[in-house]
Amino acid sequence: MVVATQSVEQLCINSIRFLAIDAVEKANSGHPGLPMGAAPMAFVLWDRLMRYNPKNPNWLNRDRFVLSAGHGCMLQYALLYLAGYDSVGIEDIKQFRQWDSKTPGHPENHITKGVEVTTGPLGQGVANGVGFAMAEAHMAAKFNKPDSQIIDHYTYVIAGDGCNMEGISGEAASLAGHLGLGKLIVLYDDNSISIEGSTDIAFTEDVNKRFEAYGWHVQHVEQGNGEDNGSLDSIAKAIEAAKAVTDKPSFIKVTTLIGYGSPNKVNTYGVHGAALGTDEVKLTRENLGWNYGEFEVPGDALAHFRKAVDRGAEAEAEWNKTFADYKAKYADSAALLERMVSGELPANWADCLPTYTPEDKAEATRNTSGKILNTIADTLPELIGGSADLAPSNKTALKNTGDFQKGSYGERNLHFGVREHAMGAICNAIALHGSGLIPYGATFLVFTDYMRNAIRLSALAEARVIWVMTHDSIAVGEDGPTHQPVEHVASLRMIPQLQVFRPADGNETSAAYKVAVESKKHPTLIALSRQNLPQLEGSSIEKAEKGGYVLSCGFAPEELDLIFIGTGSELELCVKAADILKAEGKKVRVVSLPCWELFEAQSEEYKESVLPSVAKKRLSVEAGTTFGWQRYTGDNGASVGIDTFGASAPGDVALDKFGFNVDNVVATAKKVIG
Amino acid sequence: MVVATQSVEQLCINSIRFLAIDAVEKANSGHPGLPMGAAPMAFVLWDRLMRYNPKNPNWLNRDRFVLSAGHGCMLQYALLYLAGYDSVGIEDIKQFRQWDSKTPGHPENHITKGVEVTTGPLGQGVANGVGFAMAEAHMAAKFNKPDSQIIDHYTYVIAGDGCNMEGISGEAASLAGHLGLGKLIVLYDDNSISIEGSTDIAFTEDVNKRFEAYGWHVQHVEQGNGEDNGSLDSIAKAIEAAKAVTDKPSFIKVTTLIGYGSPNKVNTYGVHGAALGTDEVKLTRENLGWNYGEFEVPGDALAHFRKAVDRGAEAEAEWNKTFADYKAKYADSAALLERMVSGELPANWADCLPTYTPEDKAEATRNTSGKILNTIADTLPELIGGSADLAPSNKTALKNTGDFQKGSYGERNLHFGVREHAMGAICNAIALHGSGLIPYGATFLVFTDYMRNAIRLSALAEARVIWVMTHDSIAVGEDGPTHQPVEHVASLRMIPQLQVFRPADGNETSAAYKVAVESKKHPTLIALSRQNLPQLEGSSIEKAEKGGYVLSCGFAPEELDLIFIGTGSELELCVKAADILKAEGKKVRVVSLPCWELFEAQSEEYKESVLPSVAKKRLSVEAGTTFGWQRYTGDNGASVGIDTFGASAPGDVALDKFGFNVDNVVATAKKVIG
Repeated sequence: MVVATQSVEQLCINSIRFLAIDAVEKANSGHPGLPMGAAPMAFVLWDRLMRYNPKNPNWLNRDRFVLSAGHGCMLQYALLYLAGYDSVGIEDIKQFRQWDSKTPGHPENHITKGVEVTTGPLGQGVANGVGFAMAEAHMAAKFNKPDSQIIDHYTYVIAGDGCNMEGISGEAASLAGHLGLGKLIVLYDDNSISIEGSTDIAFTEDVNKRFEAYGWHVQHVEQGNGEDNGSLDSIAKAIEAAKAVTDKPSFIKVTTLIGYGSPNKVNTYGVHGAALGTDEVKLTRENLGWNYGEFEVPGDALAHFRKAVDRGAEAEAEWNKTFADYKAKYADSAALLERMVSGELPANWADCLPTYTPEDKAEATRNTSGKILNTIADTLPELIGGSADLAPSNKTALKNTGDFQKGSYGERNLHFGVREHAMGAICNAIALHGSGLIPYGATFLVFTDYMRNAIRLSALAEARVIWVMTHDSIAVGEDGPTHQPVEHVASLRMIPQLQVFRPADGNETSAAYKVAVESKKHPTLIALSRQNLPQLEGSSIEKAEKGGYVLSCGFAPEELDLIFIGTGSELELCVKAADILKAEGKKVRVVSLPCWELFEAQSEEYKESVLPSVAKKRLSVEAGTTFGWQRYTGDNGASVGIDTFGASAPGDVALDKFGFNVDNVVATAKKVIG
Repeated sequence: MVVATQSVEQLCINSIRFLAIDAVEKANSGHPGLPMGAAPMAFVLWDRLMRYNPKNPNWLNRDRFVLSAGHGCMLQYALLYLAGYDSVGIEDIKQFRQWDSKTPGHPENHITKGVEVTTGPLGQGVANGVGFAMAEAHMAAKFNKPDSQIIDHYTYVIAGDGCNMEGISGEAASLAGHLGLGKLIVLYDDNSISIEGSTDIAFTEDVNKRFEAYGWHVQHVEQGNGEDNGSLDSIAKAIEAAKAVTDKPSFIKVTTLIGYGSPNKVNTYGVHGAALGTDEVKLTRENLGWNYGEFEVPGDALAHFRKAVDRGAEAEAEWNKTFADYKAKYADSAALLERMVSGELPANWADCLPTYTPEDKAEATRNTSGKILNTIADTLPELIGGSADLAPSNKTALKNTGDFQKGSYGERNLHFGVREHAMGAICNAIALHGSGLIPYGATFLVFTDYMRNAIRLSALAEARVIWVMTHDSIAVGEDGPTHQPVEHVASLRMIPQLQVFRPADGNETSAAYKVAVESKKHPTLIALSRQNLPQLEGSSIEKAEKGGYVLSCGFAPEELDLIFIGTGSELELCVKAADILKAEGKKVRVVSLPCWELFEAQSEEYKESVLPSVAKKRLSVEAGTTFGWQRYTGDNGASVGIDTFGASAPGDVALDKFGFNVDNVVATAKKVIG
């Protein structure tokens, strides 16, 4: 087809398409198909409906946009460029997918301003959208006044077939329907093509009916391809209709053609994830009547799209006025909001954290954690969270606040249901909403396996989430190996940028939360015991904050016969074994190592003071895999651990049978001492 | 209520309830609520409908039963005992949840005969059910003849609210609907209680409508509680109706009362996961008119239930006759079936595996893997599998067979859709079906994070699954850190009983498949490169099968200046660096360590021959986390690895920037040599 004249809207839509085509072509890598197909709906959304300020990507009340189908990121980069964000210039687009560029292969919020959350792993973005909508609902309920709606924005998600096949999106959608999140709008890019070919080979369910079953408001639009203003209008109308439904999230299935415009590759898998190739790019230019050069955007299109800058500035200015009025009338609320958004914590907030002495009674660290969460919640109104249906076991319920439900979004107890993976992505989005909220999500440690990608993304996306993971070893007992973590603590320690804390007692649990709250760009995972643990002599918040420290010693490094290194529930075993060996005249030290990442970040001098290189005989004791412990125990050391699956039995029996008893620790220590 | 006389069916149902109540009470641990509530439906199923032979739990054509809500395992143990399985006697029930018992806290197939698959982590069982039904459909299509239906069984699943909240069940259900698995019947124990209370707090979707959207046949039954034969009949009728629908899987929502019979705890969270307590047990006995002692089963009930033994023997005898006829008529098919079921592989099957010499051209191990899969598929008709929508990238498509679809269940290319977690549980069930099938499931290595619990369960449940994981390092390149595995290989190595192979070239890839196919009780995960790798001098299937071996040396242990230890794509770097160092007069050895688990299983003597303790200067090179490598590199060694997230850039650039180049390896080696 030859398009003689194109309306400015068509020019904008084709600009998106050809920026994507040219960038993928230059990189010889990427996914042109989605941007080519979804350009019209994205254009309508960004041009006619979405409220955002390109010159201030952090404007609190902006609408949030999530590209759940993150592989189509050239769509998002094109939108950011055309709308006038400073983060993506045309040179950045030319650097698509290159080292150190602002335009990586999937959208990463920590690299590109204007990208709200890191997506790519499919389905995550749908759940992120639910999290943003929950954050908005909560902040609105908390801060809005009858005469002032200072928090009032939508969350838009573009999701693909793959997103809708992934279980995580179903989990999140079920919860969103339950919660009636009226300001969440998901546009489903229904192009019927996935990597193995037509979605007919594996995905023939009635997606709209499924979302109806979840309690969503559901529509279907044939998008058209931007040549027909009628079809753009119908998308806009559908979005308007979605906005008008305020008590249900909205799902709009928009039927599209992947790779629209490419004469030979449209509607095929071939256009999903590879450059079109020189010839086909040329044919596509001809087909769409695109007489512009590589990376060239027609002046009219740019001028039209860039109206977003003025529009955004006006919108924010208006909001600033509203907020100034709000501030005048509701000084306390405004001050709290400003503090939260700034990321500042109240001065001395950490004074609320409990400390313990050996006289205090033994307590499961999950119980201590529950008390601390409640204490923090009273001090920090930004704390919000819950469990994947295990609150009574995880001890995560907050007493002084109610349940976050439809009609009570201002409350802070979240009920995620048995949906760990969605919980993860929702927490990530709450943390990245920009309102200063500090989310926590809880389940049994073993079920981090159900949400591992979301935990990984919390680390990559620099989301301050607190992962509260209880029942942290075979001490779980009777529930048996399906519920007993073995490799989990170690496997989480190796996720970059994730802080993993396995506290041994109350002071260390307080330290874990102090670190978690104060680490603005890191998630922290806290592994907590089911069983009671004594309050240990020598522990403190200050020491534990260093990640590792000498719990007890009294000998010079050169004298040491052995260093015990323990974490969590097994630190007590180290202390007891050390007492026995000391009584026998051995010179031993006990080191607590609750957080490897923090310990590694200390100075060499400090690390040497804790684990002196001259003291080579070392024994680690941890009720988990020994994998990785050689880093600290070295050639002359050993580890008491468990490298098999656990077994169903009472917790103390399981611990004992697998060698977590004083006798075995002492015996192993003697072998190491030699 | 006082029940004056109980029908024998009521007695059976209450026997299930009180076995569960008493066992949980004795253990003071467990989940009585589900067995008390679901006993009627389970009884009807096992007494009136299900075909099984208690005296031969391995009978090929038995119906499969999966308790997806595995925490309710006392239901299953009670059924096994009452039906007359030898694996669970009354003494075993008294040992519920104790060390080394046959009745662990969740059902484990490798411990208790009659349990088909290990469940407990919620939702897995629904997907396992889909896998069993797929295995049945495949075996039926492959072996049945117009005059002889030797494979013809149903798969029944009991699932709870939690199972239906988990994304994995949605993924599997969508696929099952697509495939039209008419012999899969899921009974949904709809008791509206989860751990945090009423499911109303998080789960208010219309589950039946959702399953309709997936393309299932859907019914709803009010179960009643066993006092009313009408309600038992209505369950039976619903199951019969489900069986009559042959082109769709069936979902039967059975509304129940959790903890039925307990006057104070019925329909509460309190009865979900804790013993009732002495007083409440007494009240429950009174309430249900149960005048029998602890663990006592009325003789009438046992006699009635044990008719399952004769019924089962007859059913199997009849089937044996059918099979004898089949064998007479279709000797080849019968021989193949018998071989597959026996677990025997064809003599010399492994001769089909390709071998390589350094003259053969470089190839990505994912491509080699694709060729090997095709070769094996031609040799082993039991191989069946596919990818979670990445077959063109994972290279997993089989050329000489078609797609497994409705109407072509005899084909062997599975299309899982973008549903990694369901794929995992489906593969587990195909492996555990007992028909000798060898399933493989594929995705990008980084997305093992989406299916980690299923991979873990494959190891625990001793399921021979081949996990084909391509794109195994930052060499993935442009897709960036969301798609670049860093910690994954190491984190998988620490899962007990899982064999993780990272082959360096063609011979090692052949070795990985040889090990995978021949390890009848272990899953094997093969991590494969996206990029081309050369065929290395010194590699062989035989050597690689040992997990680790000397690739090149020529020096005595005492002389060695350095040992390089590499895996996968980085073994080539070791070889090149070794050549440079040798040219400079250094005495170096190159060790390949493709599978740590297999290497650790070798004799101490062999391990010493590969990594002599006298040679302490060692350098590992692997494009993944250094976590765990200290085990082999020791106090005097070092590791070239990556402990941060990767970055979007062409693969060779990313590798180079992160130090995976010959210069850096040589420089680091020299530092180690000192």
